Amino acid sequence: MATFAVILPAAGQSSRFQHQQRKKPFADLKGRAVWLRSAEHFTNRDDVLQTIVVVSPDDMEWFKEKYTANLAFMNVDIVPGGDSRAASVKNGLAIVKPEVEYVAVHDAARPLLTKQWVDQVFAKAAETGAALLGVPVASTLKKVADERIAETVSRESLWEAQTPQVFRRDWLEAAYAKQGTLEPTDEAQLVEQLGKPISMVAGSSLNFKITTADDFRLAALALDALPKAAGLRALHPFEDEDPRRI
Amino acid sequence: MATFAVILPAAGQSSRFQHQQRKKPFADLKGRAVWLRSAEHFTNRDDVLQTIVVVSPDDMEWFKEKYTANLAFMNVDIVPGGDSRAASVKNGLAIVKPEVEYVAVHDAARPLLTKQWVDQVFAKAAETGAALLGVPVASTLKKVADERIAETVSRESLWEAQTPQVFRRDWLEAAYAKQGTLEPTDEAQLVEQLGKPISMVAGSSLNFKITTADDFRLAALALDALPKAAGLRALHPFEDEDPRRI
Repeated sequence: MATFAVILPAAGQSSRFQHQQRKKPFADLKGRAVWLRSAEHFTNRDDVLQTIVVVSPDDMEWFKEKYTANLAFMNVDIVPGGDSRAASVKNGLAIVKPEVEYVAVHDAARPLLTKQWVDQVFAKAAETGAALLGVPVASTLKKVADERIAETVSRESLWEAQTPQVFRRDWLEAAYAKQGTLEPTDEAQLVEQLGKPISMVAGSSLNFKITTADDFRLAALALDALPKAAGLRALHPFEDEDPRRI
Repeated sequence: MATFAVILPAAGQSSRFQHQQRKKPFADLKGRAVWLRSAEHFTNRDDVLQTIVVVSPDDMEWFKEKYTANLAFMNVDIVPGGDSRAASVKNGLAIVKPEVEYVAVHDAARPLLTKQWVDQVFAKAAETGAALLGVPVASTLKKVADERIAETVSRESLWEAQTPQVFRRDWLEAAYAKQGTLEPTDEAQLVEQLGKPISMVAGSSLNFKITTADDFRLAALALDALPKAAGLRALHPFEDEDPRRI
């Protein structure tokens, strides 16, 4: 069985996030913090040897005190974040146990996973070395300048990257060693820079990241819409269509 | 007061859509068809002189019979669709009343609007000649070939176009006259080809188009999350953040 560690970045400043005076990953989503809901998809898996949450240095004391019971029960490690997302993940990577073969990174603000999607992306990474969840871009994309449309951008072959993003541990370590000045918006971008193949695994529009207040409201509702493992196939009676026909 | 006609394309083949044996716009969304929910945001406005639904020729008889009461009550016109989205909208445009100054196109499968968003995009179009709703791209975008990532595409200045898309009637007519072989995925693309300025108005992630079964489930839940007119401002306590910091 392939073995995994999971890093959950939750160190964003969220300086403008005012929901309940909490940063997004710590907001209460129907009874449990967003980050807890994100983490629990991994802490109960046999193939996950380690779960690491990256928290801003300013939040460390508060976080440890607030979640003492959860951290002990779920066996979660905490590391302080850095000045960028990449620096934060790198701090997590530094404490991954020696026996771990694959490292997954999952946004702490992306709580709407199912076991089946995690199974699929983990299996693909174990097969090909690196894999992430994503969905094909369904919207027409526009480049905007000064609130005016400058052009329509072709969405052909374009996918929205989600997380988990899962990599052979040695690939991710090599990618960080060669980071240079690149400030990636996801980890795959660093591994792409190495020239390694990364597989895209079709996920769901439900696996969205909480960025705005509307997203947060939607997440609270969507919790009840998450497919149960047994019924997942029944959920895909529609397939995407060519929007030029609609 | 500026005057508007609204065209709702609902003529997609949906040949693979099997939800309740109905095409997407006709599926029942908590008691009312998706297209009815989309249309009713316009039929009750004083500035909308005409609402036009574009239906596939194969569905015309069924549609008229099924929705007789709604069509009469809401004063909705029906036209048959063409071989492409553009051809369908063009058929709608052909019957717009002479006194209409602006034409809006709104996806029949995008039912989650609020009056406020429509007010904003209508007002902007009346001010600048053309406007559409959209949201900034929050995800990292990947170009995918053979299920492998080929590259990360910069999302800088990129927005996802939504609808309504609203245009000066003479601009939209001129855009169709010059369509040529372009098969656009939205109407703005045709008007862009004319070189006319089009304003992007910030909408909401809630105003999504129903494309997949997961979208449909989410739409049913999100109906209850739509901001009420008075409370809209209270819904934006978070603002987007730089994902490189999260």
